[in-house]
Amino acid sequence: MVFMAATLSDLKKWYTSNENKLKDDLFSFLRFKSISTDPSHKKDSLACADFLLKLLKEADLKSELIETPNYPLVYAENLSAGPNAPTVLLYGHYDVQPVDPLELWESDPFEPKLVGKTVFARGAQDNKGQIFYSLMAVKALLTLQKKLPVNLKICIEGEEESASVGFTKVLPKIKDKIKADVILVPDFDIPDMETPAVTMGMRGIVTMELVLKSSNSDLHSGQHGGIVLNPNRALVDVLSGLWDKEGKVQIPKFYEDVVELSPKEKKALWLNFDEKEYQKEWGVEAWGNEHGYSVLESNWIRPTLEVNGLGGGYFGKGFKTVIPAKATAKISCRLVPNQDPQKILTILKNYLKAKIPKGIKAEYTDFGTGKPVRTPVSSAAADSVASAYTEIFNKPCQKILTGGSVPIIGDMVHTLNAEAVMFGVGLDTDRIHAPNEHFSLDRVEKGYLVVARILQILGDKTR
Amino acid sequence: MVFMAATLSDLKKWYTSNENKLKDDLFSFLRFKSISTDPSHKKDSLACADFLLKLLKEADLKSELIETPNYPLVYAENLSAGPNAPTVLLYGHYDVQPVDPLELWESDPFEPKLVGKTVFARGAQDNKGQIFYSLMAVKALLTLQKKLPVNLKICIEGEEESASVGFTKVLPKIKDKIKADVILVPDFDIPDMETPAVTMGMRGIVTMELVLKSSNSDLHSGQHGGIVLNPNRALVDVLSGLWDKEGKVQIPKFYEDVVELSPKEKKALWLNFDEKEYQKEWGVEAWGNEHGYSVLESNWIRPTLEVNGLGGGYFGKGFKTVIPAKATAKISCRLVPNQDPQKILTILKNYLKAKIPKGIKAEYTDFGTGKPVRTPVSSAAADSVASAYTEIFNKPCQKILTGGSVPIIGDMVHTLNAEAVMFGVGLDTDRIHAPNEHFSLDRVEKGYLVVARILQILGDKTR
Repeated sequence: MVFMAATLSDLKKWYTSNENKLKDDLFSFLRFKSISTDPSHKKDSLACADFLLKLLKEADLKSELIETPNYPLVYAENLSAGPNAPTVLLYGHYDVQPVDPLELWESDPFEPKLVGKTVFARGAQDNKGQIFYSLMAVKALLTLQKKLPVNLKICIEGEEESASVGFTKVLPKIKDKIKADVILVPDFDIPDMETPAVTMGMRGIVTMELVLKSSNSDLHSGQHGGIVLNPNRALVDVLSGLWDKEGKVQIPKFYEDVVELSPKEKKALWLNFDEKEYQKEWGVEAWGNEHGYSVLESNWIRPTLEVNGLGGGYFGKGFKTVIPAKATAKISCRLVPNQDPQKILTILKNYLKAKIPKGIKAEYTDFGTGKPVRTPVSSAAADSVASAYTEIFNKPCQKILTGGSVPIIGDMVHTLNAEAVMFGVGLDTDRIHAPNEHFSLDRVEKGYLVVARILQILGDKTR
Repeated sequence: MVFMAATLSDLKKWYTSNENKLKDDLFSFLRFKSISTDPSHKKDSLACADFLLKLLKEADLKSELIETPNYPLVYAENLSAGPNAPTVLLYGHYDVQPVDPLELWESDPFEPKLVGKTVFARGAQDNKGQIFYSLMAVKALLTLQKKLPVNLKICIEGEEESASVGFTKVLPKIKDKIKADVILVPDFDIPDMETPAVTMGMRGIVTMELVLKSSNSDLHSGQHGGIVLNPNRALVDVLSGLWDKEGKVQIPKFYEDVVELSPKEKKALWLNFDEKEYQKEWGVEAWGNEHGYSVLESNWIRPTLEVNGLGGGYFGKGFKTVIPAKATAKISCRLVPNQDPQKILTILKNYLKAKIPKGIKAEYTDFGTGKPVRTPVSSAAADSVASAYTEIFNKPCQKILTGGSVPIIGDMVHTLNAEAVMFGVGLDTDRIHAPNEHFSLDRVEKGYLVVARILQILGDKTR
């Protein structure tokens, strides 16, 4: 049997002729309340995993659930492309963010509502919508070509919105099973519909909480002010030294392992930032960039340190003259290659410890870390993804980075020793993680075509 | 008719023979839910004022309600002591603190419960219990002597726990009516039952809120970290410079108007602070005193600046990688003679304004001020109060200060150009403002005797 690759026209036809079923399946997928952070929805998550398993089996993929301590992974594979073809791991997640505040939703978040071509539902984009079109691309290729152009492994987890706890735990045990050359992650945005883009990296992350305690209960600031050292004062003192006036983090050795981009690497990135547009959108007039780097460089290629939460004493309506028993700071760092999260966590804590005033008790709690991920600008896989985008969008495809972090992707990259290519057809106006999340059926179709072409192009390279 | 002063024995007899009615009247007083901060209890406050009016009329005092924009003042006077006798204004309040958390109360806060001699109820001490025994002393003197030893004015307000808003507004209008030489305020503590003490002063206060804003909504610290200046970072930078390492406030001219105590004044004060005891009670090991002053001096005779509240971003359980739209600090200063609250507020705001980074929007909200109050150590009125204490407690009476503030007392002192003497038989274990507030009938009797003797001794001086 001569292998006949499906043409773009075939792919479009397949989509059109299956349009109603595709919509029905997507809507069924969106109806599951698979909120991983809420244990009361565990049943919904399990039902959602079963639904996905059925969907994969319908696509003629060998499928199974892989148990984790929390939510199962939905796993499928088709390795019939042979030893010369690359092995691709398609990763996504079937869990969604919580829906509160529910009153801000204009329709039931778990009953998909179609307005024109726009689908309103929790998970419509993140990640159910994007993983759905990816799976449909695989189904179409299997139907039209009988054989996939690459060896494909599919791993869809149920806890990405809650730090991928279960997957992280089983990853070392299943690393041979899910081993791949390239990890494709369709969970990302493009700048706009005129500008397709591949995401070539994300930052790592370190998160921790510092609690400073002075007294065993809140005290009256009249009766006790001047006697006891206020933990709020200790906290602002400790934290304020973390940056200099130019935004450089002052923790010794913080930047030590940062690899600067070469001019070639920098040139390959679409470093496009419209200050005016950003100001208009977010009302921002104060910039947080590190001296010597633009704001976008500071977000993409430089590590940053943020205080994500400050809490001590009374900060509601009115005034209470309290000296609080404790003051809390939630601190995170975003990391770039080759910073090691554990090393950064250690030097951050050491810095803080050295600054805590005598007599103030300090408690440190870790909230997880994630390694930075960077796809080489010379990556053939990224070029394949870019080619697919260019073809489907009929526009040049850009290469971008993101300042965000998905720790499990860093874990997979390092554990599997594979490249990750992050892509998608999300837009930053999709309101993911917020009320009235939405996606469009047009983009489901575009995403489907992009993924089908990515797999074909990746396969072509080895033919 | 020859004036016959009641003897201590007469006073004790009067108390004993009226003991049941005194207890019943006190309990009736305590049953009113006169929570001034809660408008739903306005009716209860008005009923409480009516009850007090009846109590004063029973004591044969010319009484009336003086309306304010909020809660009425209960006012009474007896000026029959004549022009050579001093005029004394007895000030107290009939409102009480809220009772939440209600679940921590072991009995109904508005149904007084007697356990041995201990009365459990909201207001049992602050200030219903203490104003009650003061009024009963007046009643006893009027009954036993037919005539008071001083010209007496009584002013009991209904909003002390909510910044005395109404009284403050009418004070300038009624200043001639309530004019006095001495203001007696039975709303204070003594160190312990072995150590009677007169409170010779309190600190003034300035309260304000600073809100720093950067963006028009919370932002994701991955997507935006490095781009936008985090208001939490701006806030800790602005606040951390407020003190130097030795606890000196760094606002220019902050200490400019502070009058240092003379050695004689300092010697007259009972500067007694047991560090070990304090550590044991409050678990404190970090001291907040200003360099060159002990912790008690820092609390009593030095101004302090505290951050009473810090709030920005997410500080609950777990972690959220947010860059908050705004960060808030509640800031207060405690002031000593002759600092002016308005001047301190101005230089504080000017200091903050100069430190706010470019592009960060700042909002300032005032939450009220109060002038410091200091009774001269040579005060004859304070000596009269001390003599009464010494007599009733059979112990030397100390002179102390408090680091706290009651703005209305400062207002009265300055508006009426009168001395204030602050006293009482409260203990810091009475749990005022907290669940299970309590007082004891023994102390009601002791307080009653102290007030009766204070009025007699004040009168004696002019005979």
